[in-house]
Amino acid sequence: MSSPVAVPKEALLNPEPLPEIAGDAESLDVWGFRDSGFTINENGHVVMRGHRYELSGVELPRLLPWIRETLGIELDPKDVNPGSYPTYIGPPLENAEFQNELKTFLKNNQITSEGPIRLRHGHGQTQEEMFAIKYGTLPRIPDLVIFPESDEQVAQLISTAKRHRVSLIPFGGGTNVTDALRCDANEKRLIVSVDMHRMNRILWIDKANQMACIEAGAVGRNIMTQLQAYGFTMGHEPDSVEFSSLGGWIATNASGMKKNKYGNIEDLVLDITVATAAGKLERTTCVPRESTGSDLRRLLFGSEGNLGIITSAVVKIFPLPEVQAYGSVLFPNLTEGFGFMRELGRETYPPSSVRLVDNLQFHFGLALKPASTGLGVLKSRAEKFVVTKLKGFDLNQVVVHGMKAGSENGRRGYQLTYSIAYIRDFLMKYYIIAESFETSAAWSDVLPLIENVKKRLEAEYRARKLPAKPFVTARVTQVYQTGAAIYFYLGFYFKGVPNPSQVYCELENIARGEILRSRGSLSHHHGVGKIRQAFLPSIMSPAALEWKRELKKSVDPDNIFGAGNQ
Amino acid sequence: MSSPVAVPKEALLNPEPLPEIAGDAESLDVWGFRDSGFTINENGHVVMRGHRYELSGVELPRLLPWIRETLGIELDPKDVNPGSYPTYIGPPLENAEFQNELKTFLKNNQITSEGPIRLRHGHGQTQEEMFAIKYGTLPRIPDLVIFPESDEQVAQLISTAKRHRVSLIPFGGGTNVTDALRCDANEKRLIVSVDMHRMNRILWIDKANQMACIEAGAVGRNIMTQLQAYGFTMGHEPDSVEFSSLGGWIATNASGMKKNKYGNIEDLVLDITVATAAGKLERTTCVPRESTGSDLRRLLFGSEGNLGIITSAVVKIFPLPEVQAYGSVLFPNLTEGFGFMRELGRETYPPSSVRLVDNLQFHFGLALKPASTGLGVLKSRAEKFVVTKLKGFDLNQVVVHGMKAGSENGRRGYQLTYSIAYIRDFLMKYYIIAESFETSAAWSDVLPLIENVKKRLEAEYRARKLPAKPFVTARVTQVYQTGAAIYFYLGFYFKGVPNPSQVYCELENIARGEILRSRGSLSHHHGVGKIRQAFLPSIMSPAALEWKRELKKSVDPDNIFGAGNQ
Repeated sequence: MSSPVAVPKEALLNPEPLPEIAGDAESLDVWGFRDSGFTINENGHVVMRGHRYELSGVELPRLLPWIRETLGIELDPKDVNPGSYPTYIGPPLENAEFQNELKTFLKNNQITSEGPIRLRHGHGQTQEEMFAIKYGTLPRIPDLVIFPESDEQVAQLISTAKRHRVSLIPFGGGTNVTDALRCDANEKRLIVSVDMHRMNRILWIDKANQMACIEAGAVGRNIMTQLQAYGFTMGHEPDSVEFSSLGGWIATNASGMKKNKYGNIEDLVLDITVATAAGKLERTTCVPRESTGSDLRRLLFGSEGNLGIITSAVVKIFPLPEVQAYGSVLFPNLTEGFGFMRELGRETYPPSSVRLVDNLQFHFGLALKPASTGLGVLKSRAEKFVVTKLKGFDLNQVVVHGMKAGSENGRRGYQLTYSIAYIRDFLMKYYIIAESFETSAAWSDVLPLIENVKKRLEAEYRARKLPAKPFVTARVTQVYQTGAAIYFYLGFYFKGVPNPSQVYCELENIARGEILRSRGSLSHHHGVGKIRQAFLPSIMSPAALEWKRELKKSVDPDNIFGAGNQ
Repeated sequence: MSSPVAVPKEALLNPEPLPEIAGDAESLDVWGFRDSGFTINENGHVVMRGHRYELSGVELPRLLPWIRETLGIELDPKDVNPGSYPTYIGPPLENAEFQNELKTFLKNNQITSEGPIRLRHGHGQTQEEMFAIKYGTLPRIPDLVIFPESDEQVAQLISTAKRHRVSLIPFGGGTNVTDALRCDANEKRLIVSVDMHRMNRILWIDKANQMACIEAGAVGRNIMTQLQAYGFTMGHEPDSVEFSSLGGWIATNASGMKKNKYGNIEDLVLDITVATAAGKLERTTCVPRESTGSDLRRLLFGSEGNLGIITSAVVKIFPLPEVQAYGSVLFPNLTEGFGFMRELGRETYPPSSVRLVDNLQFHFGLALKPASTGLGVLKSRAEKFVVTKLKGFDLNQVVVHGMKAGSENGRRGYQLTYSIAYIRDFLMKYYIIAESFETSAAWSDVLPLIENVKKRLEAEYRARKLPAKPFVTARVTQVYQTGAAIYFYLGFYFKGVPNPSQVYCELENIARGEILRSRGSLSHHHGVGKIRQAFLPSIMSPAALEWKRELKKSVDPDNIFGAGNQ
């Protein structure tokens, strides 16, 4: 396996390959590892299966009561919505000449048309998709899934696809929440999902210059483990870091929870090698910064599979931190907490990760506590403010109106992120749809935006006479000098509601309209994909849209990369 | 004048217009303000005219002796190379229909075909160009110079140019050092230089969110002065900051001396509005960070006039620093100093600006001291290391093998930058060509690269039997986590050398080849323009070059923006 960028003189070549981790199988029908997930036990309490997380194996007696109270419903553990995964898997299209030619450069185990594998490659992790595979259908999925193992195979695949008029859709972790992998129902060509998981090696580590060249299919948990063995971290930790891949992070323009210290993905990536319909885009050397004309690599950030297949990237790596410290602060209300976040955004050196949650989310956090924990002061009706990965930052100096709530609550808040991702699919079984969406805005727009979106959703919910009460909550998850990122959750009980998944989509679109009117962005880090593409004309000028179309046409005139995002 | 991006709620609209600063006229034939520049006085000593700089009016008795010694020449103050600026200004092409149409939307004082003005708009600040206007010729210059005053006029100009097949070249500060403004000698169309100086207003300042929307023609010194009045700075200080413009910074992908604190231009710009052949690229809101697909605005960084005319940008602004402190450190040799720089690059919070000079440049700095200064310890054969804008950084902890050399030397080194820019044109009159070029490289490549380039240039100089000794020196001017930027000076005495400017170009190209072989970048912050375009195929793959061509074709099919860079 050759490294695309010239290998630095002092680099360690091909560190040992990734260990095969037994039991790391991922679920096909729900989020996450197969061995983990929430369930209701014989005591009628929620418990998380498996052993991976802090929450694993712990009874959570407060969760169901809290859900019942918050949504104003009677949730019956025995009343399960009977899903029928996989609902339907249509026969794959065939293209005999193409498929025969594949066999000349791929092994048999690199090609599959197995139904459940094809299905899994036809969607990401939106509620809409995860609902559809159990309670609806996906009208079109890839016809073939291919697992390339080298840059050369990717290049051959592209040129073969070109000759036989086949559409290629790159697949990383499959964790996108933008319908980016959803296939066009009208696509008449063979659709090939190009699964990058086998291109997962760290090609070199250059300790002296703190860089590593990593294949794009490597997923976050393995990048972390492997770099750790060399005393380094990449520092990129999106909520999906266990499953999402380096290539996916770039194609999504991802943001990591510790971006204050390490930067977002665009700050971490020094170079990208990408296979396109016109050939391989690559560079000879990798320098810290340069001015050599319009940098095409920048177009790959947020490209969502439209322009080519990212095969590897050179990224910054950082010595593991000497200390990881956590903290949390309670504020009497959201406005006080917000003021604190705003100050933090202007600090030259804010904590690595910081988030501010509203009262409802604070209580959600409490509902996820095991029975044995005394809630004490935390149960007051204050706001919870979590400062994680505290370093070089004197809390006492900054917090004027807040009350310190301990490092344990801070640590717990950070770790909970990974478990919470499993809750959506658990709730879906009990007739609750819940999902997140996010935005970013200038500081002075943040609070009005949160207020506007909540009000609008609640009003719309009432107007549609939907059951009981919706769950609408917001948190501020990233701070910048000029503004912040905002994360919303929307959830509701849907028993008796026709097309609940569609209703959710309509509500989210209404919320998005309100976000744009409130001067928020179309997305801070999730991306556009297909779920938000209808909004593009409201954020950019016709000429900008025209440039985008022209760009795509000029570099991929046959639309080989037919994901159709944006 | 309308702001392209929706104006933030709390923004101050149209701060008062820029004061007209009398006497700020710029020279046409040499760098800088007309009232400033080096000359030799009646005592035979170099002195800087004017009152703008610390060096102004100060006799520098050491400079000529130092130059004589360093280059091994007899420099006679009376032996001046008789330049004949302007050597030649050809008659402008005419396009009567186009020129008549211009008058329908432009005032008379917005259009000129005056010879010296046209000439000035046909070049930047490379030695080659500055030599040519006095001792050679520029074969082709713009036929017309136009001074638009609004986005609307720029748009009309472009659509008029399109209809009449006219080529447009945007002009900012005219300070580029890449031949970016040089006109194609074979261009048969009318060439219009679009001088952006009159679009120089700050459209709004949003103190609450620390952003400002500034027209692209505003030059650095005026941006600084105006923001300062509101208690802010943009923090972008390239060496050319007095004259270069916001639009030029973006189009060049510029780097500022204080980038450690404020970032390079790509970190400082939040949004760009640009007029293109397809219309206006603009966005509705300006958020701190977003993921909304491939971001076309990123293509403008380093676009060098090829894609359109940048008309305004939203930039971050920062409260003025409470303290500005300077420092300097002497090291026994370059390697020790380099080790220190490398440590600094990995500091989370390095000083705002920092540079390491080699022994020759250290002595150059001493030669620029006035007679009265005792040199004392500085005159030892140590290296000089300048830490400027020190803040939040404990020098004592880091400097192990260096010796602190005082804040005055640090401050002086920083300020000297602006004066030194005048020296090149002063020396040219005395048969000395001297110019800078720069690169960036990974840390472990920096010292070998400097060594290789120096050796190669010295060997080539000897092989060509050029006069006496060349002046070849390097400094490390920017630090990053993974590497650094390196600045070279090359100078030599050319009396009796045929085509000296051409010889310089050949030597610089040889140096550039050596830089690329030593794993350096084609440019850290100067750009490509025409001076380095021949090297593009050695740094990127054919597919990448093809993408660049396709991109240009797709967004500007008629090549209206005919600067022809890259």
